[in-house]
Amino acid sequence: MLYLGIDLGGTHIACGVCDKEGRIISKEETPTLPDRPFEQVVRDMGLCALEAIRKAEAVPNDIAAIGIGIPGIANNDTGRVIFCTNLGWNDVPLTEELQKYVNKPVYIENDATVAGFAESVAGVSKGCRSSVFLTLGTGVGGGIIVNGKPWTGAHGVASELGHLTIELDGIPCTCGKDGCLERYCSATALIRMGKEACQVHPRCDLAQRVNGDLSKLTAKTVIDSARSGDEISMHLFHRYARYLALAINNVVSFLDPEMVVLGGGVSNAGEFLLNAVKEKLPYFLMFKTMPYCDVQLARLGNEAGIIGAAMLGRIMKEEGAFSYAD
Amino acid sequence: MLYLGIDLGGTHIACGVCDKEGRIISKEETPTLPDRPFEQVVRDMGLCALEAIRKAEAVPNDIAAIGIGIPGIANNDTGRVIFCTNLGWNDVPLTEELQKYVNKPVYIENDATVAGFAESVAGVSKGCRSSVFLTLGTGVGGGIIVNGKPWTGAHGVASELGHLTIELDGIPCTCGKDGCLERYCSATALIRMGKEACQVHPRCDLAQRVNGDLSKLTAKTVIDSARSGDEISMHLFHRYARYLALAINNVVSFLDPEMVVLGGGVSNAGEFLLNAVKEKLPYFLMFKTMPYCDVQLARLGNEAGIIGAAMLGRIMKEEGAFSYAD
Repeated sequence: MLYLGIDLGGTHIACGVCDKEGRIISKEETPTLPDRPFEQVVRDMGLCALEAIRKAEAVPNDIAAIGIGIPGIANNDTGRVIFCTNLGWNDVPLTEELQKYVNKPVYIENDATVAGFAESVAGVSKGCRSSVFLTLGTGVGGGIIVNGKPWTGAHGVASELGHLTIELDGIPCTCGKDGCLERYCSATALIRMGKEACQVHPRCDLAQRVNGDLSKLTAKTVIDSARSGDEISMHLFHRYARYLALAINNVVSFLDPEMVVLGGGVSNAGEFLLNAVKEKLPYFLMFKTMPYCDVQLARLGNEAGIIGAAMLGRIMKEEGAFSYAD
Repeated sequence: MLYLGIDLGGTHIACGVCDKEGRIISKEETPTLPDRPFEQVVRDMGLCALEAIRKAEAVPNDIAAIGIGIPGIANNDTGRVIFCTNLGWNDVPLTEELQKYVNKPVYIENDATVAGFAESVAGVSKGCRSSVFLTLGTGVGGGIIVNGKPWTGAHGVASELGHLTIELDGIPCTCGKDGCLERYCSATALIRMGKEACQVHPRCDLAQRVNGDLSKLTAKTVIDSARSGDEISMHLFHRYARYLALAINNVVSFLDPEMVVLGGGVSNAGEFLLNAVKEKLPYFLMFKTMPYCDVQLARLGNEAGIIGAAMLGRIMKEEGAFSYAD
């Protein structure tokens, strides 16, 4: 049997047909254009999915199940998306609407959970019974795999690791609280630190790299400058790596998984980031002499969304739609 | 069949025989006297266990399995206790030594995990597939139940919830790091806050309750004073409850269990504490309109150690010793 994975993003919809090992057989993409009515977005998801199936030289009846990763949360008992802020969706019947185009069982999950599940089926954490995925992007997302399955909690709101408080009354977060982890560990955090440094040191290497136009400063600017040895950027980068090590220890002290996987834009810094984090992690560990999780970079990149969604479809089909309390 | 539960504490060893539902049939206690050699402590554990079995009008062969809760961590593959700081134990063969007295399968687990498991089998969280137990004592311990089983992590170091960082570079912790949750949510934290207040307000109600002798100030002093309406103590108590609400949100945002259970000395404040925490929790929640876990007080009190240990023995016997990665 084949499995259809749909990665629903704020800018693109990516559909792919996978085999049962999570290998992508065909892919198709279309713009999301999120300002349109819900039904029109889902229509394009459906047509994109049908085109991916055609490209796989398959027919809809070859598809055993459909998985969808969304930047939000859903209730799989009702097939409704509860929140999907980027797309302005609130309590919409995604499963019912999509089944007008491909009438197969649909399973919807948060995109970070989907990406983490993909890595655990076909990526760097393959073979691990427990792993935690951290996406270091505009925000910080989390994906938790326990006993080989995604863990989404008793009410579907688990793994919001970006919103663990790590600083009492710290930096205000978009969520309305203060001091959330994502204010310190996201790409946005690295950009903020870079801008602050440029305001104090207007001629620093960072400021020069963007010709003084701080609106052009990205996480990559800071990382490239640090990599070149610039002292100010090195300082920021190591501060960032320290926050990330603290965050990883919070994962270790809570769940002690076999592996922590780093994905998202900042993880493109590769070994440079990984080495800095691994160097700082032992300080934060509770039991210095006990073995602890491996920390690795995600391997599947943009394809994690399709693969993870397809594999969610598979696990749902094979083991039954697991309710949140399972 | 019957199950033997042993609660190994720094001052007392409590042994009990339970039926398969976790009902205590008989109990026996003996002092730990932790300064003695390891073998002598285990000898008293063994004799105490045999006495509990005799009191239950049973013989050792009626016991299907033995569970032990320890203030430390153990490796059940080897039967050795890795750390048990209060007792000064480092890498000792507890299973082998105890089996000289009662030769049955032994399963050892951290005491907070054991207490949380007890509540999930026979206490307030009975029937919950997922729950998180927080002991609010000298430190803060955690017990995680996932899919009805204790979760101890891939390397046995999970659920050290007292050592999640909640304040960057915060109050120094006994573990060597700074800003750990237990510096804000333990009985010790409430005592520290009380002492600080007394130093600034030497004639406050709190100081009067201990006749100015701050070494006599306990968490109960602060709670009693707050309950009587004293303004300074009310302020401290609500600050404490706010930290605890923040900690509970970290649990919700990570694992989203069905229930969070509060145990340990501070939880004796009862509804007074529970109401204050429940009032403060919504502010910290990421999804304000989604359902979330119930927060309840532990019900089993001191018996949780025996019951949880006995039920660990049962689950081990019935489902096989689960390794950390299960």
